[in-house]
Amino acid sequence: MGEFDLIERIRRRAGASDSVVLGIGDDAAVIRPTPGMALVATTDALVLDRHFTADWAPADIGHLAMHANLSDLAAMGANPRWALLALTLPKDDPGWLDGFLDGFLGAAEATGVVLVGGNISSGPLNIAVELLGEAAPEKIATRRGAQPGDRLVVTGTLGDAAAALDLGRDAPEALIARLHRPQARLQAGRILATRAHALIDISDGLLADLGHLLHDDLGAEVRLDDLPASNALQAAVAEPMQRRRYQAGGGNDYELLAALPPEAARELDRLAVSAGVAMTEIGHFNDSGRVRCLDADGDELADLAPGWDHFSP
Amino acid sequence: MGEFDLIERIRRRAGASDSVVLGIGDDAAVIRPTPGMALVATTDALVLDRHFTADWAPADIGHLAMHANLSDLAAMGANPRWALLALTLPKDDPGWLDGFLDGFLGAAEATGVVLVGGNISSGPLNIAVELLGEAAPEKIATRRGAQPGDRLVVTGTLGDAAAALDLGRDAPEALIARLHRPQARLQAGRILATRAHALIDISDGLLADLGHLLHDDLGAEVRLDDLPASNALQAAVAEPMQRRRYQAGGGNDYELLAALPPEAARELDRLAVSAGVAMTEIGHFNDSGRVRCLDADGDELADLAPGWDHFSP
Repeated sequence: MGEFDLIERIRRRAGASDSVVLGIGDDAAVIRPTPGMALVATTDALVLDRHFTADWAPADIGHLAMHANLSDLAAMGANPRWALLALTLPKDDPGWLDGFLDGFLGAAEATGVVLVGGNISSGPLNIAVELLGEAAPEKIATRRGAQPGDRLVVTGTLGDAAAALDLGRDAPEALIARLHRPQARLQAGRILATRAHALIDISDGLLADLGHLLHDDLGAEVRLDDLPASNALQAAVAEPMQRRRYQAGGGNDYELLAALPPEAARELDRLAVSAGVAMTEIGHFNDSGRVRCLDADGDELADLAPGWDHFSP
Repeated sequence: MGEFDLIERIRRRAGASDSVVLGIGDDAAVIRPTPGMALVATTDALVLDRHFTADWAPADIGHLAMHANLSDLAAMGANPRWALLALTLPKDDPGWLDGFLDGFLGAAEATGVVLVGGNISSGPLNIAVELLGEAAPEKIATRRGAQPGDRLVVTGTLGDAAAALDLGRDAPEALIARLHRPQARLQAGRILATRAHALIDISDGLLADLGHLLHDDLGAEVRLDDLPASNALQAAVAEPMQRRRYQAGGGNDYELLAALPPEAARELDRLAVSAGVAMTEIGHFNDSGRVRCLDADGDELADLAPGWDHFSP
């Protein structure tokens, strides 16, 4: 089986859409954008032993490749529409490819995304996805715009993926599922984007990504005991300080972090119902120029992990 | 220097455009498409020891990464507009990155492309580029539509890059330049797209890419002695049969191959002047269902290389 057979294998399984004038199989794809909508574009690559390990099911790698990108569009409040896939494979392995496509195209279909093009090369495994979405220009949220007094709000629960990564083979299935099968918060993103002063997805860790929302003298207080923890995390990690480390410092949860004005934060329960996912207020922004993490007594904890950097030692 | 410093290093050098509402630095880029235009999207990844070797100058790798993608848009007749870059680097090496950006962003600026976003991971070197362009829907050319009687037309010269690859260190500088610094035929693509029944770029080799234009009973005759050769190729490869192998089977030239109706082929000299690059008629399509390569006496040569497949042995 050669390059063109592999491409044909992918083409047969890719979806279709009226918006796609020309899909897989030409030099480039031709797409009909929706008049009046802004185009929202992101790319994320998955690398072996960095984002996943050799023991992962190919379908989980495919799922993660799509959802890591979906999460970036969720953080803008955009609707995902079209994907391109640049796949570098160490060998011609149709079985692996079929499993990968189960997860990748399954996640695409479930979120209204059509795979319109791509490229296959041979080399060390690398999965680069480009995802295009659309949003009404006035409804797009960005990282910049948080103000003192805004509430810090997160979706879902934090720390599950980091705990799964750290516990390895000892991690319970529910935590591993969060690491291998994250769910981008697309509906929550659309709902929060129209109300938030700033919005970001938590891929590097809560505190690291919170840092990306700060500008000028903006600071924040985070109430550690209010960080939402899943039942699985509470059961698997009994020690509160260790749990906080996963929640505040660990990445890969793909939840959203919003800076919500107080009046919007007051209707959080209603927004959570519309989004189909929990939303929790975990602190607020101030003009202190720094981030303080407080325990239940209001004492500061200063030794929490700073989050993920691909090139840190 | 960490991931975010590297991203900042790229952001400072990326261009700007009124069409870019939000560029590098958020979860995704926000682009304002031109009303009425179709979006044309492609992706191509470069892999070490497959598309380039360790002795390549980083700037040449950057140039190739951009032009390999530009060439796909040229083959549709589209105007390149916006790029995303998913870079996987084995180590934190600002010197390499700066050199790479010289070539990559230099090629972008020269062709009106703005880098709007991307991603950096650590791992085996892999450069995945996604390029977005625009075209009026009625002016887009595809691979499908060639008809019996159409003339086979190529831009520029063929075989230089393949000869450089094969001759290695013995290759003259002019041939190496074609391999390391190909020029996507954007203007020729726009001109040919409005006249051609089918259009493709020659990245895998003339005969391999010609194969992608065939459908149903369509066949073609290629006159080998009419394949355009550069002076450098004629000087470096004196043996005619070896030269033909490079020209017919070698990839990486990034010229265009068009199926032009006879009336358009008659004004080829004028089109070439407008495009700023040579255009040569090298044969024609017929209804034979196969490709025949003929020498000057009209005899068939059947043993030419089939072109490039990433997973062939």
